[in-house]
Amino acid sequence: MALTIGVDVGGTKVAAGVVDDRGTILEQVRRPTPSTDPQQTAEVIAEVVDLLKGKYEQVSAVGLGTAGFVDETRSTVLFAPNLAWRNEPIKQKVEDRVGLPVVVENDGNATAWGEARFGAGRGHDFVVLVTLGTGIGAGIIIGGELYRGRFGIGAEVGHFRVVPDGRRCGCGNRGCWEQYASGNALVHEARELARVSPAMAGRLLELGEGRPEGISGPEVTQAAREGDAAALECFGTVAAWAGQGLADLAAILDPGLFVIGGGLSDAGDLLLDPVRAAFERSLTGRGHRPTPQIRIAELGSAAGIVGAADLARL
Amino acid sequence: MALTIGVDVGGTKVAAGVVDDRGTILEQVRRPTPSTDPQQTAEVIAEVVDLLKGKYEQVSAVGLGTAGFVDETRSTVLFAPNLAWRNEPIKQKVEDRVGLPVVVENDGNATAWGEARFGAGRGHDFVVLVTLGTGIGAGIIIGGELYRGRFGIGAEVGHFRVVPDGRRCGCGNRGCWEQYASGNALVHEARELARVSPAMAGRLLELGEGRPEGISGPEVTQAAREGDAAALECFGTVAAWAGQGLADLAAILDPGLFVIGGGLSDAGDLLLDPVRAAFERSLTGRGHRPTPQIRIAELGSAAGIVGAADLARL
Amino acid sequence: MALTIGVDVGGTKVAAGVVDDRGTILEQVRRPTPSTDPQQTAEVIAEVVDLLKGKYEQVSAVGLGTAGFVDETRSTVLFAPNLAWRNEPIKQKVEDRVGLPVVVENDGNATAWGEARFGAGRGHDFVVLVTLGTGIGAGIIIGGELYRGRFGIGAEVGHFRVVPDGRRCGCGNRGCWEQYASGNALVHEARELARVSPAMAGRLLELGEGRPEGISGPEVTQAAREGDAAALECFGTVAAWAGQGLADLAAILDPGLFVIGGGLSDAGDLLLDPVRAAFERSLTGRGHRPTPQIRIAELGSAAGIVGAADLARL
Amino acid sequence: MALTIGVDVGGTKVAAGVVDDRGTILEQVRRPTPSTDPQQTAEVIAEVVDLLKGKYEQVSAVGLGTAGFVDETRSTVLFAPNLAWRNEPIKQKVEDRVGLPVVVENDGNATAWGEARFGAGRGHDFVVLVTLGTGIGAGIIIGGELYRGRFGIGAEVGHFRVVPDGRRCGCGNRGCWEQYASGNALVHEARELARVSPAMAGRLLELGEGRPEGISGPEVTQAAREGDAAALECFGTVAAWAGQGLADLAAILDPGLFVIGGGLSDAGDLLLDPVRAAFERSLTGRGHRPTPQIRIAELGSAAGIVGAADLARL
Repeated sequence: MALTIGVDVGGTKVAAGVVDDRGTILEQVRRPTPSTDPQQTAEVIAEVVDLLKGKYEQVSAVGLGTAGFVDETRSTVLFAPNLAWRNEPIKQKVEDRVGLPVVVENDGNATAWGEARFGAGRGHDFVVLVTLGTGIGAGIIIGGELYRGRFGIGAEVGHFRVVPDGRRCGCGNRGCWEQYASGNALVHEARELARVSPAMAGRLLELGEGRPEGISGPEVTQAAREGDAAALECFGTVAAWAGQGLADLAAILDPGLFVIGGGLSDAGDLLLDPVRAAFERSLTGRGHRPTPQIRIAELGSAAGIVGAADLARL
Repeated sequence: MALTIGVDVGGTKVAAGVVDDRGTILEQVRRPTPSTDPQQTAEVIAEVVDLLKGKYEQVSAVGLGTAGFVDETRSTVLFAPNLAWRNEPIKQKVEDRVGLPVVVENDGNATAWGEARFGAGRGHDFVVLVTLGTGIGAGIIIGGELYRGRFGIGAEVGHFRVVPDGRRCGCGNRGCWEQYASGNALVHEARELARVSPAMAGRLLELGEGRPEGISGPEVTQAAREGDAAALECFGTVAAWAGQGLADLAAILDPGLFVIGGGLSDAGDLLLDPVRAAFERSLTGRGHRPTPQIRIAELGSAAGIVGAADLARL
Repeated sequence: MALTIGVDVGGTKVAAGVVDDRGTILEQVRRPTPSTDPQQTAEVIAEVVDLLKGKYEQVSAVGLGTAGFVDETRSTVLFAPNLAWRNEPIKQKVEDRVGLPVVVENDGNATAWGEARFGAGRGHDFVVLVTLGTGIGAGIIIGGELYRGRFGIGAEVGHFRVVPDGRRCGCGNRGCWEQYASGNALVHEARELARVSPAMAGRLLELGEGRPEGISGPEVTQAAREGDAAALECFGTVAAWAGQGLADLAAILDPGLFVIGGGLSDAGDLLLDPVRAAFERSLTGRGHRPTPQIRIAELGSAAGIVGAADLARL
Repeated sequence: MALTIGVDVGGTKVAAGVVDDRGTILEQVRRPTPSTDPQQTAEVIAEVVDLLKGKYEQVSAVGLGTAGFVDETRSTVLFAPNLAWRNEPIKQKVEDRVGLPVVVENDGNATAWGEARFGAGRGHDFVVLVTLGTGIGAGIIIGGELYRGRFGIGAEVGHFRVVPDGRRCGCGNRGCWEQYASGNALVHEARELARVSPAMAGRLLELGEGRPEGISGPEVTQAAREGDAAALECFGTVAAWAGQGLADLAAILDPGLFVIGGGLSDAGDLLLDPVRAAFERSLTGRGHRPTPQIRIAELGSAAGIVGAADLARL
């Protein structure tokens, strides 16, 4: 049985796993990312790969899913602010250390591939996965294959503009979708509400130990589950932006299925119901066209590892 | 030499041509569209095809490029408001009349294919063509092939939302890109300027015979060519929206080339320079990524015929 | 009984009347405005005054209500684009010709004064009148007196900005309130709807003889009275902007009463109901403060004459 | 010499002073506000008044400037969320305890009156003061008198809407001016910048001890004084909103002078220059009308005490 290793390289942690050809993770390991020193990150990656390879001799290849722009040859990370990488030849570096073939992929792509092959997207050939977490990551499956674009950097859907002169984004622009529809956007809504209308946000503030800054995603989700009106309003606002954005993507890409992952998707139907409502209200040509499905992701944070590992197999 | 016929079926006219395998139109014919009677439109199409087929015996197939949503089997037009078609089995109807195999394609797709194969997109595999005319049509070429989406209705890029609660669109939504960046948007700008600030719009009003409603695209382009400040401001406004929208599409699709066609593209560099400036100002990750090219289309209104004819050959 | 003459000097007509001290117009006369020649306008004013004075010997003074900025001494029109006046010493000119004392007032102010003294504002000391017509005119009554501001040019409420980077305004800015909440804004909505969604705007187009440009205010009002959904939607949109703007003015000015005049007010409750709803939804501090009333003006186009005449008496 | 006591009752502290008829504070005292218990706040006020009255026998009256809506009889605070007051008969309560006549005034009004009589507004009869601090307070002087409106609650200029569907405001609405042009808005800009673009906000983060939440107004002002580009950009953004809002108020109120106070005004010309630039760019009718002046307040936080004391004297 062919095994490969998938590595999910994020701004705070490096998570790796040995994965079989049915997408099952046999063993997993994680390390904190030494994010300020690009050289050390490669070493941490090599270290976890060596560790896993030592236990599973059949491992034949390594897939890395990393934040940032990956070049079209899947070798070099052009730019990854969270990892302090700039034109980093990460494929070569890791191959030199571990002695296995390495493929590099954007983490949104790896996650999308994992979900498409083994998770919520099984059996679909036209899938857009959006990960609503700190920002918005994404991957696009077209005709059963991962779409990479001309230069390897497609599917940066978190950065199409939804509000002219809107909220500032880390990419240097203003009004990007990820400032309105991500997990961070939910937290932003809840804290803003708690700051300007503390009386309305009583339960949220209680869960946040009295301070707006104490409120994070899990607090908002918990309060929403309890039926707290303020938390539900925050979900409603973010879900409306999410549904509108999916409708925009449907106009452009016409997929058969959207999969929603990331921290925000932990809320399940609390998120999905208003997202679907907004989507159906906003879809151009609604009533005269087939409507794509929208589902919650199934693999959670494992999707990145599983997807990267599977891409190494191809 | 294999010949095919391409037919461009629009809201006001049906234009058809015999096309060879190098994209050359050997002979062309046009008729007004009997747009209120769907049945008659099929007959007009059959009529022009018969006429051309009578002169060129080698014709082996027919490609129709039509406005509206075409289903994934390329047989039926699901919805085309301008043609009064609703679930119209146009492939079957035309085949029954002309005795040749027929393929049906969205007109934006046909035009994109024509430009990609024989016009401004020659030699590129990842091309997005946008037609800035009455509205915005588009077609997407991925890996050298026409992208149709899961249900055959992708590339409706004119209808992603760029302004929340913005200008009303014929699709039923508000704030669609085509309300800000099309040829019609240019006319809208110029007339609004002439209406509220007639003193500033002196030259435009002169060309429009004294009335805001007298100003159309050619008048604005002419005034802009003469250096008229008001006309240039209108171009600047529309070009800024166009460039921003292309940057949004680049974030999602990562093409190697954008081709701009449609009536607005007749202005050439008057349009292209400010579009490029806005695009470069707005592109996410600019400075850390390859930048797609932007060019003006080369085939003009023939692109739809040529593209449809070529798609019939495949 | 003291009589005075009020003259309403607009861009298209000069209307004058002899008015008694109870606000009754005894006789009225009108002439077209020779708007391109500022000198002739003064002569037309003198002519109508002479005519009325010849019939009513008791006339003791003349009040002029004119479009544009009037200086703080109520003598000179600083700027009135519609009348081609620039620093026009209109008080002196008319006094020289007619031999009666003349006072000059902004037309919005004159109209507000007329309504406040003899119309919908009787008995109120803090009144804001807004005239929703071609643009938005206004006058403010504070403590029973007309408010003129430091330089005589207050109450230009049509030009506070309600949409950043919004619709172009004749004042040179973008996003002014009068572009969203005036009679012209209603026509703009209806024509835009007819242009982009002709199917929805069937009745409006019928009344407009088939063309969007054929639709004006009376057509929209008629269709709305018949219950036409498209016309009602246009009213709803404009009324929402009007009500929001009144709420903004209430936050700043805290009046006891708003009076709505101008062509749009002809629609009566069709306008007033959604304006009040939007106002109550938008008023800052609602539920914790007294709420100003909102009424429709009572004097129609006579308010300007009556108000100007009465101001001449003071 | 007639002396009066002015008390500035805010959400966090009660500050009182004995003031002579030239606006000089002879002695001052402050206490924290027991903000959760409305009854205790009246007692703290009585306590500081008693203390000052014990030292200055000539004190003849007390003026209270408080946050919130004050009724038209200047006796009752209708609603003051920060003080937990709702229909609080504060005049009666304090008079009962201190045995002196008491007048109650909105704190923005008291501050405006202080600046108009003894500070930056001396010699002007038409003044609008805006206090850019936590929110935006304001007071309007018309014809040399404090403007209170019909119900005593005018000049809530912080709550006119400048962005449809914009940032949430504590008043329950969205898009209020104070969310964009206050001292808090400056901090919001700086923290947002530090959060999404830490690389650009190096100096700001350094001053904030490494955390976005560590950045407050003084840090942004200090960095801007040092020439830090990020801090200057934040000032530019907020000043543009402030200048636009003043232009909106000028259209409505036509004052001769704007005075800018509050924490944001500590930045002096760093704020004033871009505010003036934005104001002049945005003023309707610019070039055809006298332009109001804009100045920085002179009395700092003492203006509220001085103004309240002087209003008690009238």
